[in-house]
Amino acid sequence: MLTAAAAVEPYCSDWRGRYHGRARAVLRPGTVAEVAAVVAACSAAGVAVVPQGGNTGLCGGATPLADGAAVVVSLARLNRVRAVDGDNDTIEVEAGCTLAALQDAAAAADRLFPLALASQGSCMVGGNLSTNAGGVHVLRYGNMRELTLGLEVVLPDGRVWDGLRGLRKDNTGYDLKHLFIGAEGTLGIITAAVLKLFPRPRRRAVAWLAVADAGAAVALLGRLRATAGERLCAFELVGASALELVLRHIPGARPPLARPAPWSVLVELADADPAAALDEQLAAVLGAALEEGLIGDAALAASLSQAEALWALRENISEAQKIEGFSIKHDISVPVSRIPAFLAAADAALQERWAGVRIVAFGHLGDGNLHYNLSHAQGEDNSALLARSAEVNRIVHDLVASFGGSISAEHGIGQLKRGELPRYKSALELELMGRIKQALDPRGLMNPGKLL
Amino acid sequence: MLTAAAAVEPYCSDWRGRYHGRARAVLRPGTVAEVAAVVAACSAAGVAVVPQGGNTGLCGGATPLADGAAVVVSLARLNRVRAVDGDNDTIEVEAGCTLAALQDAAAAADRLFPLALASQGSCMVGGNLSTNAGGVHVLRYGNMRELTLGLEVVLPDGRVWDGLRGLRKDNTGYDLKHLFIGAEGTLGIITAAVLKLFPRPRRRAVAWLAVADAGAAVALLGRLRATAGERLCAFELVGASALELVLRHIPGARPPLARPAPWSVLVELADADPAAALDEQLAAVLGAALEEGLIGDAALAASLSQAEALWALRENISEAQKIEGFSIKHDISVPVSRIPAFLAAADAALQERWAGVRIVAFGHLGDGNLHYNLSHAQGEDNSALLARSAEVNRIVHDLVASFGGSISAEHGIGQLKRGELPRYKSALELELMGRIKQALDPRGLMNPGKLL
Repeated sequence: MLTAAAAVEPYCSDWRGRYHGRARAVLRPGTVAEVAAVVAACSAAGVAVVPQGGNTGLCGGATPLADGAAVVVSLARLNRVRAVDGDNDTIEVEAGCTLAALQDAAAAADRLFPLALASQGSCMVGGNLSTNAGGVHVLRYGNMRELTLGLEVVLPDGRVWDGLRGLRKDNTGYDLKHLFIGAEGTLGIITAAVLKLFPRPRRRAVAWLAVADAGAAVALLGRLRATAGERLCAFELVGASALELVLRHIPGARPPLARPAPWSVLVELADADPAAALDEQLAAVLGAALEEGLIGDAALAASLSQAEALWALRENISEAQKIEGFSIKHDISVPVSRIPAFLAAADAALQERWAGVRIVAFGHLGDGNLHYNLSHAQGEDNSALLARSAEVNRIVHDLVASFGGSISAEHGIGQLKRGELPRYKSALELELMGRIKQALDPRGLMNPGKLL
Repeated sequence: MLTAAAAVEPYCSDWRGRYHGRARAVLRPGTVAEVAAVVAACSAAGVAVVPQGGNTGLCGGATPLADGAAVVVSLARLNRVRAVDGDNDTIEVEAGCTLAALQDAAAAADRLFPLALASQGSCMVGGNLSTNAGGVHVLRYGNMRELTLGLEVVLPDGRVWDGLRGLRKDNTGYDLKHLFIGAEGTLGIITAAVLKLFPRPRRRAVAWLAVADAGAAVALLGRLRATAGERLCAFELVGASALELVLRHIPGARPPLARPAPWSVLVELADADPAAALDEQLAAVLGAALEEGLIGDAALAASLSQAEALWALRENISEAQKIEGFSIKHDISVPVSRIPAFLAAADAALQERWAGVRIVAFGHLGDGNLHYNLSHAQGEDNSALLARSAEVNRIVHDLVASFGGSISAEHGIGQLKRGELPRYKSALELELMGRIKQALDPRGLMNPGKLL
């Protein structure tokens, strides 16, 4: 237990520095029994609990509120890989395992754990589960939810639910694990999970393509899915302004193609079969697409280092945006088929309101998930952009809703978007969520002020 | 509304003829608004509701109780395919669509809906969702739960929850759809769903293999997964006695290999790429396995008709068992890695107790899911076997539990296994299920006497 102000303080701010709370203490249990004892004691005393993993969330879901009434329970010491079952293709890990440690344990068993995020060196499995983390390989492998077979959860009264089943099929009642996944710690503390493992890909093919518009990118996605099937493991859309920022700010970044294009697509195929002719398969689809004018140009990575250089262009967008200055970010999804119409409508609405504003759009087109961000117009300063955040959010999120989309595709709600939910979810859905909360945490002690 | 006894009667028995109930009436609404009106009227009158789709369930979940207090709400007229979105790879269908009609609608859009069951001509989407149906392709595509993106549900008070989102990523609160999937109609009536579509496989390779024991089958599964990855779309284990029954009772069935083997495996690879060299890939893995003695013999289907003949051997096991006479059936799962030990322990326990009893084991080894059935010993009659059902179930299910398994892998609980749950689920898990039920259906009007 940490109580000294200096020791507690690092647990009270999120890593982006947007939220600063206070806590009575930080508890760092090292076993599930200790987590249970801590939660039971808090329950008995009526003290609220804020579960925290790697503290890398983007919505303030793991940061205590400013009232200082809660304790933070850090899962960082609960970090064992409990078991790997190769024949069952499963791994059992504790909530405090970093995602990177989980990936490493899978690799050591000659398997893949496919979730991959920028923060994987420090984010933890408990947080990945509680936010239903996504990333670049969801197209093929699904979100964290789809990767989970079983959970162990400390309930709000301190009892432990052992749902650590490693079964692909189990139809014996309500599937309770799905309540806790994505619940952002508001229904209990996930302490361990049984997760799926996959064959390791032994061949990859990576290409960077120029397309005239998002519609062409959607058409190309359909072509690739039709022949490559599940081999298609990433399909990332990158707007021209996003690539420009990377080329301007990231040392060593080089244009992937001879001429700039309105939109780029980063494609990756992967196959477990070491003899798979992925380059040939990709080249055949791209060759046909070039001839038809569906894509303007293409660069196929001829080596691992070339593939990494192409991926770096995609992965450095957030870093480049940070260097450029403040930006208004949106983590949205719409049906893949509606991405082009959404982009056209959003761009038009924003440019009409603020001519010259730079739209930095990129993301996981294969999942219908875009990071639709705004940077200040050339010559304008950050504060002008910052001042209109609420207005921008309203325009973007209203459009997302009108296209049947989600205002938080993969980052969750936390504190950041809690106030937005009543506008974008039906009263009935919010009521159902409230009834679930009431059923499992009637006293509201689990992570108050988040999500609900 | 049907009220005449002769009209109501067909809705009051399950298709296996194990359950015979009574109902005040059968309602057959044709729109969601009509479903909502029916449920609201029942709620106002305090009348229980039994939702029913194709009435093909195996556990009596759609059959009203004998007390005759409930009405049956048939979803059969709510059977439209509402929309197909090719670019989003989704389809929106109503609960009364048969699975075959759904598959056909997907095929008409040049897509695959992968769920496949013996009853697909008559089972309906609402039932597939409410029982989280499985089948032979779960290994690659997942259960019905994994195939579902959004739901529309009439709640116990008659209000309609519109959760029909076609999004791969949406992290905006508790994922309510997972409560209703697999809930067997005890929390509301699913009226429509948005489901995932997949690229159509354009190449297949099918083989029948002889293995000495289940351990060899598990090892082979690992080899195939490691190179074929997601192309491996079926891996079915068939015990010698199951194959014998098919060869004895099914006209036209022929031995797939020159000599009988203790166990057989039916393998299928499939690929969206019409140029995929699946036969060669499968032959390479099987050739290496033959050389090592992991498999004893193998027959690769050289034509579509040969592939169908091999599949018919697998698919006719239940029919052959029915012809042979009464059998005690178990739909169980354990972790794939524990299948060999489970089989050894269960066979030993049963043979020790009843020497000569025939164990007819087969199923989806790739999912850890076996149909572990017993037929009477040669010379014994059905009634002797029938009389010991409870004792057999206890031995098998206790062993399943000791191996971390499930007593209902894909068929659900319904009336059949409701009495078993308190023995095999923790009191805490049952309490949590009860709290969810209480939160959503506090008056207990939805499908009483099932599951909970």
